[in-house]
Amino acid sequence: MPSLQRRLEGNKTRQQTVKYRITLAYDGTDYSGFQFQTGLKTIQGVLNSAVDKLESAPVTLHAAGRTDAGVHAEGQVISFQLNGDWDPSTLVRAINGNLPDDIRVLDAARAPEDFHARFNAKGKTYRYQVWNGEVMNPFLLRHAWHYRYAIDIEKLSEQSRALLGTHDFSAFTVSDCEVRTRIRTITRISIEQQNSLISLVFSGDGFLRYQVRTMVGVLMNANRGRLKINSIEELIESRDRKLAGTPAPAQGLTLMKVEY
Amino acid sequence: MPSLQRRLEGNKTRQQTVKYRITLAYDGTDYSGFQFQTGLKTIQGVLNSAVDKLESAPVTLHAAGRTDAGVHAEGQVISFQLNGDWDPSTLVRAINGNLPDDIRVLDAARAPEDFHARFNAKGKTYRYQVWNGEVMNPFLLRHAWHYRYAIDIEKLSEQSRALLGTHDFSAFTVSDCEVRTRIRTITRISIEQQNSLISLVFSGDGFLRYQVRTMVGVLMNANRGRLKINSIEELIESRDRKLAGTPAPAQGLTLMKVEY
Repeated sequence: MPSLQRRLEGNKTRQQTVKYRITLAYDGTDYSGFQFQTGLKTIQGVLNSAVDKLESAPVTLHAAGRTDAGVHAEGQVISFQLNGDWDPSTLVRAINGNLPDDIRVLDAARAPEDFHARFNAKGKTYRYQVWNGEVMNPFLLRHAWHYRYAIDIEKLSEQSRALLGTHDFSAFTVSDCEVRTRIRTITRISIEQQNSLISLVFSGDGFLRYQVRTMVGVLMNANRGRLKINSIEELIESRDRKLAGTPAPAQGLTLMKVEY
Repeated sequence: MPSLQRRLEGNKTRQQTVKYRITLAYDGTDYSGFQFQTGLKTIQGVLNSAVDKLESAPVTLHAAGRTDAGVHAEGQVISFQLNGDWDPSTLVRAINGNLPDDIRVLDAARAPEDFHARFNAKGKTYRYQVWNGEVMNPFLLRHAWHYRYAIDIEKLSEQSRALLGTHDFSAFTVSDCEVRTRIRTITRISIEQQNSLISLVFSGDGFLRYQVRTMVGVLMNANRGRLKINSIEELIESRDRKLAGTPAPAQGLTLMKVEY
């Protein structure tokens, strides 16, 4: 039975626990995705090692979005609890000091005790970059998909509207994707072109696994008149993954922002 | 003594020789600079292997600028002679097919017989990128210098004017730099800021080895009031390399354009 002293220390420790949220940017090229996997280099694995060094016991991290292998982030959000009360800017420097150069904590803030980066997320924004030139830009090898077929940008914007709103996106995710519902709402799609670089930005309440990359693949096929079904509307309705074709490659995708 | 037949073939071959100029983009991160060096991976070495495959004899390449290790190019120009008469767009594809992804031929054109990428160059434009944020941008590790001290952009633009015009730039190059003259003319300096990214663009009739990187280092020191001499004007006049301080690191520099 613990002594009074021990129990008081226990209480003291519990009271000092502080919840933090950090914004994380990373180049996902050299990582096997966000989520921890034994024996593989993952963002979570490397970040956990960095944060664990600040504490005497392992820290549990919660990420807003579990990005896949090769996918990047400019505004990933992570929440975790620390025993020590850290000044946020000191915390940024302390974690960054333990991280490799291709992962950076951009900012940190104290958060309410019940804050959870994933469960509390109200919206997310992803950007997908396509390099639509005959010759690939050697500076975008890690950050864009080299797509050679001519793209009609106005038609693309028009075609993308079919994805807006609330739909069952079963056709746009992996068949083994275990989620309660595959209904998601896309609130905004913006498509911009700067010379050969086309950026497709998707905002919504959340995205299924591979959803953004599959939507980009579908849009490119639709633009070339190569959909396996009459229209994107019919594809959504079919809920048939096989009709959606191959998802666009990982390197073009970046998690830009998470809203709470 | 060669037969008439041999001499005719010789003439025929000589007449078919065609001069080409190509525009080259490369990420210099993984290369020991442009110029060929035995046992090292250089842009020239890799490009020469790619071009040699098109011919039965080795091809001599002339580059507009010999970029240093880690320096990039968006518009390097190379000239060379081929025995075959290649359609320029076929030539682009043929060379790119033999090159790694981080070096790309952007375009090719037939050039006058006496065209020489270096000797005929009338002007060059270099860009230097500085990331002036507390936390480095992980996407610019290979393409910008992380400089943490506060930069006063208006003062920087003003200070940069001292470099404009025709000067002996001996203080801004390596002491063993063997050139006929160290007098160069800088025609334009433009400094732009987009959030934490500062781009310094220098145009001139030519630049000495390390000149752009040394100018950037000098401008940053001047901006902090840390020059080893009263002013940039006095530094130029001193022609003393030791007073200029350390050149800015290679990864921020890109050869953007060559004018003829």
